[in-house]
Amino acid sequence: MTPARAPGEPGNVRRGRRPAGQDTRTAIIDAARTEFSAKGYDASSLRAIARLAEVDPALVHHYFDGKAGLFVESMSLPINPAFLIDTIVAGPREDVGERLVRTFFDIWDSPQGRERLVALIRSAVSNDDAARMLREFLAREVFTKVAESVGVPQPHLRAGVAAAQMIGLAMMRYVIGFEPVVRASVDDLVALVAPTLQRYLTDPRNGDMAHQSH
Amino acid sequence: MTPARAPGEPGNVRRGRRPAGQDTRTAIIDAARTEFSAKGYDASSLRAIARLAEVDPALVHHYFDGKAGLFVESMSLPINPAFLIDTIVAGPREDVGERLVRTFFDIWDSPQGRERLVALIRSAVSNDDAARMLREFLAREVFTKVAESVGVPQPHLRAGVAAAQMIGLAMMRYVIGFEPVVRASVDDLVALVAPTLQRYLTDPRNGDMAHQSH
Repeated sequence: MTPARAPGEPGNVRRGRRPAGQDTRTAIIDAARTEFSAKGYDASSLRAIARLAEVDPALVHHYFDGKAGLFVESMSLPINPAFLIDTIVAGPREDVGERLVRTFFDIWDSPQGRERLVALIRSAVSNDDAARMLREFLAREVFTKVAESVGVPQPHLRAGVAAAQMIGLAMMRYVIGFEPVVRASVDDLVALVAPTLQRYLTDPRNGDMAHQSH
Repeated sequence: MTPARAPGEPGNVRRGRRPAGQDTRTAIIDAARTEFSAKGYDASSLRAIARLAEVDPALVHHYFDGKAGLFVESMSLPINPAFLIDTIVAGPREDVGERLVRTFFDIWDSPQGRERLVALIRSAVSNDDAARMLREFLAREVFTKVAESVGVPQPHLRAGVAAAQMIGLAMMRYVIGFEPVVRASVDDLVALVAPTLQRYLTDPRNGDMAHQSH
């Protein structure tokens, strides 16, 4: 979504207080991430986001389709999901679990990635709109695309269980702060978790009720 | 923790409005679960819990060590964790993953179990005290005890990663409501997830940097 440029910015926009050349839209998105991360979806206001971005509230409405639209855009991955999926699906199939786990922690361990992840989790847990957005994102994006491209049975359930592992790790590492998971290196996490995602998303033998006899 | 009986209940306790014989302490805990589940830790008040339980607020203070104490007790599993650990550790080691997954979903799929789980997650995500309680619970309880009893390397990290899988599934099934995980039978979830917990908690070969060469 590429909105038209502002036809003329209101006179009371304090652009001078932001570094010259900084894009207004980017400044609003950055402020939205900070606000959603700190307060969650419900308690965040467009007015507060505008104040934080040092722009007139009218500009927020100009660039974004309300609070929900701003939320979706501010929560998006720092790289294009389509590119992410291509990269992950394109490499050797036997390493797809490792590429997924490593890519997620590379994004999440950056301060900006961590901030938007925490905002997403806080919001999805406390707000129905945010939960719906996360549901829809999960149904459409990375894990489901990978499982579908491989052709395992129950691709949507497997995508959900794989996403659950990563969301749970995000909770432990960034939200709850469970020390052993906070201190773990990405290599240690990859070594433990990559085989799990590999199995969920690519191994058709698992999940076929091998445990039915119990 | 078994508190002494109330030495004399205040006169304005409306015991008559609860079924005869219902234990005051149980009524308070039930009300606390309802309140924490609906509002999370911060927004819940002891006064509102007392009103819901139809007891005098002084009785809440008599039976419980403040809001934090009441939270810990109201969030506890419906069965004694020590008994749970014994049951899970006592059986054949090759089935420990399945027993864990099945036991958790048996508890969580009950209306009461689900309510307290959602309350715990909502509170841990939005409140530092609740997050600390969950951290401490995780460090002490089921997953860590199982990993330690088996003697795998990095037992605390493995416990954290196993707990992350289950917390993530709880998010998907009960909080976010991701349809394929909501609709899945316990047997389907066990078939997919039991081998994961089995590997994390009992297989010393995994997590030993098998992926180091990449």
